[in-house]
Amino acid sequence: MTLEKAMADYKDLDRKVIKLSKQIVLMCTEAGSGHPSSALALVHITTALMYRVMKYDPRDPWNSASDRLVLSEGHAVPVVYAAYCDLGGVVGTQTNPSLLRFEDALTLRAADSVLDGHPNPAIGFPFFDAATGSLGQGISVAAGLACGARLDETARTIYCIVGDGESREGQIWEALDFIVDHKLLAVRTIFNCNHQAQSDYVSAQQSAEALTGKLLAFGFEVKVIDGHNWDEVFAALTAPVTDKPLAIVARTIKGWGVKELQDRTCHGKPLAEANIPQAMADLDAKADELGVADMPDTPAVALKVPARLDKAPRNRVISAGAFSEALKAAGMEKALETRQLSTRKAYGAALASLGAADDRIVALDGDVKNSTFADIFAKKYPNRYFEARIAEQNMFSAGVGLAAAGKIPFASTFAKFLVRGYDQIEMAAVSNANLKLCGSHAGVSLAADGPSQMGLPDLAFFRAFARSKRVDGQPACRVMLPCDAVSAFKMTEMMANIDGLCYMRTHRPDVPMIYEENETFETGGFKHLIDGEDLAIVSSGYMLHICKKAVEILEQKFGLSATLIDAYCMPLEADEILQIGDDCRGQILVVEDNYLGGIADEITAAAARSDLGVMVTTMYVRSIPKSCREPAETLKLVGLSPEDIANTAQSVFDKSE
Amino acid sequence: MTLEKAMADYKDLDRKVIKLSKQIVLMCTEAGSGHPSSALALVHITTALMYRVMKYDPRDPWNSASDRLVLSEGHAVPVVYAAYCDLGGVVGTQTNPSLLRFEDALTLRAADSVLDGHPNPAIGFPFFDAATGSLGQGISVAAGLACGARLDETARTIYCIVGDGESREGQIWEALDFIVDHKLLAVRTIFNCNHQAQSDYVSAQQSAEALTGKLLAFGFEVKVIDGHNWDEVFAALTAPVTDKPLAIVARTIKGWGVKELQDRTCHGKPLAEANIPQAMADLDAKADELGVADMPDTPAVALKVPARLDKAPRNRVISAGAFSEALKAAGMEKALETRQLSTRKAYGAALASLGAADDRIVALDGDVKNSTFADIFAKKYPNRYFEARIAEQNMFSAGVGLAAAGKIPFASTFAKFLVRGYDQIEMAAVSNANLKLCGSHAGVSLAADGPSQMGLPDLAFFRAFARSKRVDGQPACRVMLPCDAVSAFKMTEMMANIDGLCYMRTHRPDVPMIYEENETFETGGFKHLIDGEDLAIVSSGYMLHICKKAVEILEQKFGLSATLIDAYCMPLEADEILQIGDDCRGQILVVEDNYLGGIADEITAAAARSDLGVMVTTMYVRSIPKSCREPAETLKLVGLSPEDIANTAQSVFDKSE
Repeated sequence: MTLEKAMADYKDLDRKVIKLSKQIVLMCTEAGSGHPSSALALVHITTALMYRVMKYDPRDPWNSASDRLVLSEGHAVPVVYAAYCDLGGVVGTQTNPSLLRFEDALTLRAADSVLDGHPNPAIGFPFFDAATGSLGQGISVAAGLACGARLDETARTIYCIVGDGESREGQIWEALDFIVDHKLLAVRTIFNCNHQAQSDYVSAQQSAEALTGKLLAFGFEVKVIDGHNWDEVFAALTAPVTDKPLAIVARTIKGWGVKELQDRTCHGKPLAEANIPQAMADLDAKADELGVADMPDTPAVALKVPARLDKAPRNRVISAGAFSEALKAAGMEKALETRQLSTRKAYGAALASLGAADDRIVALDGDVKNSTFADIFAKKYPNRYFEARIAEQNMFSAGVGLAAAGKIPFASTFAKFLVRGYDQIEMAAVSNANLKLCGSHAGVSLAADGPSQMGLPDLAFFRAFARSKRVDGQPACRVMLPCDAVSAFKMTEMMANIDGLCYMRTHRPDVPMIYEENETFETGGFKHLIDGEDLAIVSSGYMLHICKKAVEILEQKFGLSATLIDAYCMPLEADEILQIGDDCRGQILVVEDNYLGGIADEITAAAARSDLGVMVTTMYVRSIPKSCREPAETLKLVGLSPEDIANTAQSVFDKSE
Repeated sequence: MTLEKAMADYKDLDRKVIKLSKQIVLMCTEAGSGHPSSALALVHITTALMYRVMKYDPRDPWNSASDRLVLSEGHAVPVVYAAYCDLGGVVGTQTNPSLLRFEDALTLRAADSVLDGHPNPAIGFPFFDAATGSLGQGISVAAGLACGARLDETARTIYCIVGDGESREGQIWEALDFIVDHKLLAVRTIFNCNHQAQSDYVSAQQSAEALTGKLLAFGFEVKVIDGHNWDEVFAALTAPVTDKPLAIVARTIKGWGVKELQDRTCHGKPLAEANIPQAMADLDAKADELGVADMPDTPAVALKVPARLDKAPRNRVISAGAFSEALKAAGMEKALETRQLSTRKAYGAALASLGAADDRIVALDGDVKNSTFADIFAKKYPNRYFEARIAEQNMFSAGVGLAAAGKIPFASTFAKFLVRGYDQIEMAAVSNANLKLCGSHAGVSLAADGPSQMGLPDLAFFRAFARSKRVDGQPACRVMLPCDAVSAFKMTEMMANIDGLCYMRTHRPDVPMIYEENETFETGGFKHLIDGEDLAIVSSGYMLHICKKAVEILEQKFGLSATLIDAYCMPLEADEILQIGDDCRGQILVVEDNYLGGIADEITAAAARSDLGVMVTTMYVRSIPKSCREPAETLKLVGLSPEDIANTAQSVFDKSE
């Protein structure tokens, strides 16, 4: 048999599969952990994709026109690493790239290796677009990449591999709906049906038959294949595009080629070193059976590489223009006279202006665009707006995909419903995705709808990321807490220009404008709004207006003069605020309309490590609220009315004497 | 037409529907907010259920044998309130109940009303089992109630109403899989297909036809009905039980009976007072059309009431027995010699012992039971174990349903994957559900699997609830941070005996036992493990072992003696710890293996409001980790090795001099 004939018969790929399988087994044993059995189930599909089907150059993972692979079941990653190392793929950064060699696969999971336990592009593995491993998120990422490809008018195909057990995650079905809604035919999803999950066989609800039925009902074209049969694998992967998105249900064998790893108890277990010889013998026997035992390993057939497309550099400054012009453009000119506007409306106006300034700006919303005011953008730029319906998890992960495609996605919903996607948001942070989040109707000022609609633990959660750093030393998340329309507008613009994850919190009620339209804001900063001497009150967002009333009461009722500070972001540089507190008889009162864990903690943490001896008193939502008809009633209910604040401030002042 | 004849023709129900519809319109206008159009779409289905089909007594919502209604689309609640008020339903608590009258419906959303904006049992509306309104959670709750009913051997039926737009939420499909897996035929799900969501019509993916196809593919029997046709409604609701769970796809009209409310822009909008007369005229015209304009309102047909079943009182003490006996029973007797055991294994042993002690103990896990060690319980009590597969959202909401059925559910998965259900967990807190959570593999000691598997923002999130109070003044969540097998065992037992939501964090590695088996623990408490004088180190969980090593280094390398405190829970009573810090030269060092927001913040908050002047230095995970092969490497990577801690402690000590 000539080499040409062998290659035509896929014999070269059979040879490759044996080589990669051995490496998968060895690298997991070397690492002392990992999921070789899951990786082996995918060895044919991954080999077909990475050596033949995908149009890409392993030496240029940054080409925005090339095909992509999203490995949703991230634990199967050794198969991709083995192939990418064999292909001499490039890792690192675009300015500081390096080439992998086959042996590098053995660095799997080492502290200084970019071959993390699960796909992790942020540490230097740019073949992947998003960190996966928390299951069920990959199809959404692929969908976001496809949205980006459509905007870029590139013909790239996004392949996504999903586990059968994983397909129990509800997000999978959100993503499939989203793909059909937006006709994202560039996504090809492969369900890896090896019939085993971690602790048991998969449910009959996730059998290949059941998945096929479900996929058909969701509007997909479905091809059911043997995932180890080259003809079937290639026919499915390269099937012509029809008017329906394609899903491939691939029956596979967990632990393919290695008997010990086919046992049901072998999920996530590498072989003991003593059992490696038997595994190698198993694979040699497979090679014999396939007739490739003596065939030399061949290089990859020259892959098709699409013309290079660069993403726009992240550092190009995007301007939202003048506040007043943006309001006029959004039909909110009346607010320029009344000087009353909610922060959520200003977000909407800013988003639309940013959209006009730069076509990388895209938006998503979860069926509340008329409440978050993303609908202004949606109407002006319908091709750059992706309605995600009532499915928040998919929305955030699709945003990660859009960001990976070089877009600047803004995803909005109620702050309460953002909680639905906190896992996806955490994975966005791990991915270092350039995703912008806006949570509206935060705090308790939503009042009448009750606690199921109020955003309350949000600052605690996002502060955890604001105080955690990315590889480049920047905060994993920037948090924006605008108190008025001007600051909401400017902070929306800031978010567009920050490289990385940001969260902005907006409120429902219309509020007076505190700032003039030329006011500027910066990350880490704060504003000293009122200068007093008896104590310092620190607040943000909607509560700043309530604190202003409290300051008036303090003066009228108690004859006290209070400083008022707008601490509008996290991480917050609090040392200067402590200094101001020190000048105000050493007393600071922090007021928030969320559960504990936000700016109060920023300031107490600073105080506890400082030797100024400033005392910090905190007021926040200390009980689960209920409905009230008016915001003022809710504030009273949770002890945050202007009178409550003034009374607490007065008792704080008493302590200082 | 005689009254008897009219009633046989459902004319009495037509009359009732007009009465309730008017009240729905009026109560929302009175409240100034609410969702009358959604409520009107359900007026026939709800009337059929609450006046005829459900076997229950509105005067005894605490009967555990009666049928239940879970309103997943919580915003449609005015229809239930109107009916329940008309029926003279009971609200309040079992010890302090009160009867509603028809007019009470007009108190909707008032600060002192139990008729919250969305279903909210915790404030005194016991007709409902769980707070809903964050969408997509109701079927899971219903499934949990059905699991409970099976264990109680009661024949109750759980009706659940879901919106069509809402059925986009992935959790819906997780719940349906769970129902099929566990053959929960007691659940009857009604999809309210009014074809409108908030900001637009629903997607074609959520049309009645599409939903029907999907439900069939998921293994349901489906009945498609006109939701305003009595014959079809009753036939579907009372259809005989088959071997498949039943789903009813009901085509309905949003804003039924009131023209203005049928407009697409009317989601969540009450009528202006000026438009009330027209709405009343619309409904009067409907009454004419139905031939019931002159018919008197009739009382409910006597409802069938099942024999009373009381839940076991929550305050019966449950003992896990002796630690050593439990370990033996779990096959872990070897650990009694080695005195080495991971906290996750001790959780598993404790859970199994609790299961032996009390049959209210039930467990759920998301396909990681062999990692969380819930599998010991699963094997011993298979009928009380509900495998939730890889679908965390459904697992937590099903736990809420089980708790509402009087069970004490323990739900476990990796701490990382708990994040997937933070919204569901928040709703459990709002519901005051007696749910116990265990997050395993917390912190960075998982090492090799990388950040997609590590639980890091968990303490920030759960502290927000630990520092928020329920109606009865108790913390909305208790957080347990065991450092060894004994404390994990005892804290699992504590959780079973606390009334309400609890979260316990366990770690992967085996660690030495610090406590003797007769040690006792209490909420809010801490342990003074090592007595030193140069500074106080406060830690918990796995890090306590690392801090012990740091204390040794401090003594050997720097000649310093450090106090070591195990702060094992939140909310933490930190004042006494501050006092200890004050005795240790006024310096406290807090060490955690999570992102900021946990016990460090508990202590800094206490320090900042105290006048002791204690300085607090904090060490926590300040960067997003990556894979390392060994825990020690990860600790070093994130700056939390014993040496890092000792060096920081030394510099803290230097400050005190």
